[in-house]
Amino acid sequence: MTTDMLLEGSCFVLAEAGAHRVGRKAMAVNLSDIAAMAGEPFAAVVSVGLPRQGGRALAEELYHGMREMADTFQTSIIGGDTNTWNGPLVISITMLGYATGTGPVCRKGAVPGDWVLVTGALGGSIRGHHLDFTPRVREAQLLHAQTCLHAMIDISDGLAQDAHHLVEESGCGMVLRAEAIPLSGEVAKLTDNLSPLEHALRDGEDFELVFTVSADEGRRLVQEQPVPGLTLTHIGECVAAGFWLEVEGKRHLLEPKGYSHPMT
Amino acid sequence: MTTDMLLEGSCFVLAEAGAHRVGRKAMAVNLSDIAAMAGEPFAAVVSVGLPRQGGRALAEELYHGMREMADTFQTSIIGGDTNTWNGPLVISITMLGYATGTGPVCRKGAVPGDWVLVTGALGGSIRGHHLDFTPRVREAQLLHAQTCLHAMIDISDGLAQDAHHLVEESGCGMVLRAEAIPLSGEVAKLTDNLSPLEHALRDGEDFELVFTVSADEGRRLVQEQPVPGLTLTHIGECVAAGFWLEVEGKRHLLEPKGYSHPMT
Repeated sequence: MTTDMLLEGSCFVLAEAGAHRVGRKAMAVNLSDIAAMAGEPFAAVVSVGLPRQGGRALAEELYHGMREMADTFQTSIIGGDTNTWNGPLVISITMLGYATGTGPVCRKGAVPGDWVLVTGALGGSIRGHHLDFTPRVREAQLLHAQTCLHAMIDISDGLAQDAHHLVEESGCGMVLRAEAIPLSGEVAKLTDNLSPLEHALRDGEDFELVFTVSADEGRRLVQEQPVPGLTLTHIGECVAAGFWLEVEGKRHLLEPKGYSHPMT
Repeated sequence: MTTDMLLEGSCFVLAEAGAHRVGRKAMAVNLSDIAAMAGEPFAAVVSVGLPRQGGRALAEELYHGMREMADTFQTSIIGGDTNTWNGPLVISITMLGYATGTGPVCRKGAVPGDWVLVTGALGGSIRGHHLDFTPRVREAQLLHAQTCLHAMIDISDGLAQDAHHLVEESGCGMVLRAEAIPLSGEVAKLTDNLSPLEHALRDGEDFELVFTVSADEGRRLVQEQPVPGLTLTHIGECVAAGFWLEVEGKRHLLEPKGYSHPMT
């Protein structure tokens, strides 16, 4: 069971994104939470607070976006609560999923010696990916079916912050290798003064999966690349303690936080 | 599974009610939805959008109110999503309940000849009851355990509107008898120009239960009054078709709608 609330002006800019994409995203972020546990989503309830002006047309567009995303993963919208008020648009979705395979994959379960892997490439989601991503539901299930996932999370608050959740919950440490972190093509197009690596570590809303497996399984996965159309990258290892970024062979303490986009 | 969203300025006035009572109410309205199906609530997730100013203190007060109400019915708050934004306070709760006894009681199931009964007294909830009510979770279970409830709903939008949901879903009609509808003591204290009966029919947020049973069972329940501390009142019957208010023996069509409080 997972829940996520999207607030206008904080999680999205309605005028820029359009209601259809906002509805799509509201559903997708919840699906991504189910993916993070390698679950199979099946039902959602949707509550909305609609602005009085144009609320009905807005609701319809939102709904179509939600349905499009929910249908992609055979998830039913089974109910909700529709309200009108004088505030901005707010959407709250709660989703139910089944555990698959050997049960849900948790944040807890990583052990020293594990390899840390990530799906896809990171950073720069603000350029569109944060609205248009497809949650890694199928990829997570595929991985779960063919290897023993020790711990997993989806990257919603940035790699540094979310990988640290694995560390906290598992009671171990982690080293991420700077040179190994896959950078999204969008990162190079950003014109602020953060480095590409900073973006990959700190940007929120990649909605990729970061997970740990035994070193042997990690080696096999990276070699076999068993998920069609998706690159799995080995970005680090679990260690006994500490949260580290290794740059050119030297370890630095890594601050476990993402950064907020100007929008948020 | 049920969900309810409360919006500041629309569902409550924060400055008047105080955050503790608002938290209590946010939980109670969801519990009332579980009560409407004679369910046993067990888990809730809570999402909030907090104003930036004073958000933390507000969150704590809300939480204490929620916990107080949830604890009363052994319901765990198992997670949620906490956000800060530039908008007013918004709270969205989704709750899970188990079916009890012979299964969930639905809106569908009323048949012509059924008696219509209501718990407690109606109208005037704006004077405080809408914040301070205790959802009829235990009463619903007690009734469900000892009689065959054909159809049931909680009164959140006013008797006229919610009783009509039973009619719609069950595909029958209903006659409510004006003289039989129990008026809350608060109704007399309202100083607008609506009649006490209008208030009892139209006021939202009574959070009493209206349900139908066979005539024999209805007669028994009214005579035996099996729920300690609660009066069950016979307010009408199900008929083949139509939605009626009987006043001094004469039937009038009853408009199936509540009215919005000035606040809403």
